[in-house]
Amino acid sequence: MTPSATPAYRRLSVEERRSQLLDAALGLFAHRAPEDVSLDDVAEAAGVSRPLVYRYFPGGKQQLYEAALRSAAEELQQCFDEAREGPLLPRLSRALDRYLAFVDQHDAGFSALLQGGSVVETSRTTAIVDGVRRSAAEHIYQHLGITGAGPRLRMTVRMWITAVEAASLIWLDEDKQPPAGELRDWLVDQFVAVLTVTAARDPQTAALVGALAEDGRD
Amino acid sequence: MTPSATPAYRRLSVEERRSQLLDAALGLFAHRAPEDVSLDDVAEAAGVSRPLVYRYFPGGKQQLYEAALRSAAEELQQCFDEAREGPLLPRLSRALDRYLAFVDQHDAGFSALLQGGSVVETSRTTAIVDGVRRSAAEHIYQHLGITGAGPRLRMTVRMWITAVEAASLIWLDEDKQPPAGELRDWLVDQFVAVLTVTAARDPQTAALVGALAEDGRD
Repeated sequence: MTPSATPAYRRLSVEERRSQLLDAALGLFAHRAPEDVSLDDVAEAAGVSRPLVYRYFPGGKQQLYEAALRSAAEELQQCFDEAREGPLLPRLSRALDRYLAFVDQHDAGFSALLQGGSVVETSRTTAIVDGVRRSAAEHIYQHLGITGAGPRLRMTVRMWITAVEAASLIWLDEDKQPPAGELRDWLVDQFVAVLTVTAARDPQTAALVGALAEDGRD
Repeated sequence: MTPSATPAYRRLSVEERRSQLLDAALGLFAHRAPEDVSLDDVAEAAGVSRPLVYRYFPGGKQQLYEAALRSAAEELQQCFDEAREGPLLPRLSRALDRYLAFVDQHDAGFSALLQGGSVVETSRTTAIVDGVRRSAAEHIYQHLGITGAGPRLRMTVRMWITAVEAASLIWLDEDKQPPAGELRDWLVDQFVAVLTVTAARDPQTAALVGALAEDGRD
């Protein structure tokens, strides 16, 4: 297959082509561990030649994987976007619904990334994942109306985010049981429960738990 | 430095020498990221020559790191050993005290390992860490007197174990604040809180939470 045989080659802009290749890669990384995806697979899925993939990603699979990961991280962070209006816990529920839909779609790729030990995992990929975690925490503080979260509250929120990740991995392992809606409610209830435990040790969190209880009564 | 110049070389058995090198390596990995430890450093810390380190670990740093990690994993699993007598939550507290002392001692090495993205992280090192997590869960089930933990209870226990790991990393990041004793009580209270949330959805966990409440009254 040569470029001239496929006119579509010339019709796409550089950005469009790049985005097409990333989509193809993400589709493959979603259902297989990164080490099981070759550049040939990506070229085939995108309907292009292997040299073309290399032209866009001269660093080979590692570069393609990191670019795909960055693109997935952006998509994941969009799950957290939620209007700051209405009761707080339903907002968290809606964000979790979108997050679980993302986990559902990205499946094996999501597991491989978070479980570590992948041959394509580096300090850069870890930094991308940590960025998503930080972004999740920031969204939570913003919705809760907190500007300077103290150490107890921060630790609680970060522990809960980690627990949500663990739950997602187990959920994928267990054929997505319980159904996403049940898992979401369970995670929201855990959020309130761990905040309540921290409230007994931290005035900032205690005020927050009080506000959440008020909020639920509106 | 030649072997004949240091008579101690011949006095140690193969096992003793191996164990001496592992101890030296663990001491270094505890306070620096694995990528910042060279075989020269290990040789120097153990007071032996670099070729000797290579003779015991012909696979170089990767092999030494994995052996040191396995040795640390065994030590960590010993933290979970606790007599099956007396009230349950104080048993959990004592195990957590030992665990936090381990985290305190192993510091940077513990962080590097769990945070991932280390150049020496492989699917083998990940499997060692997962083995410790499984062992922690098994110990919890044994103390709770549960033989066939259902999916809800398993997910809850695994989420809590992950949250404890996250708390340990944050704790190291935040200059070991709050003091270990306070962190331990906080983690135990979270354990009860998340079990209680699950109890509303799962009869097995509900029975357990009931038993824990009875247990506390003894």
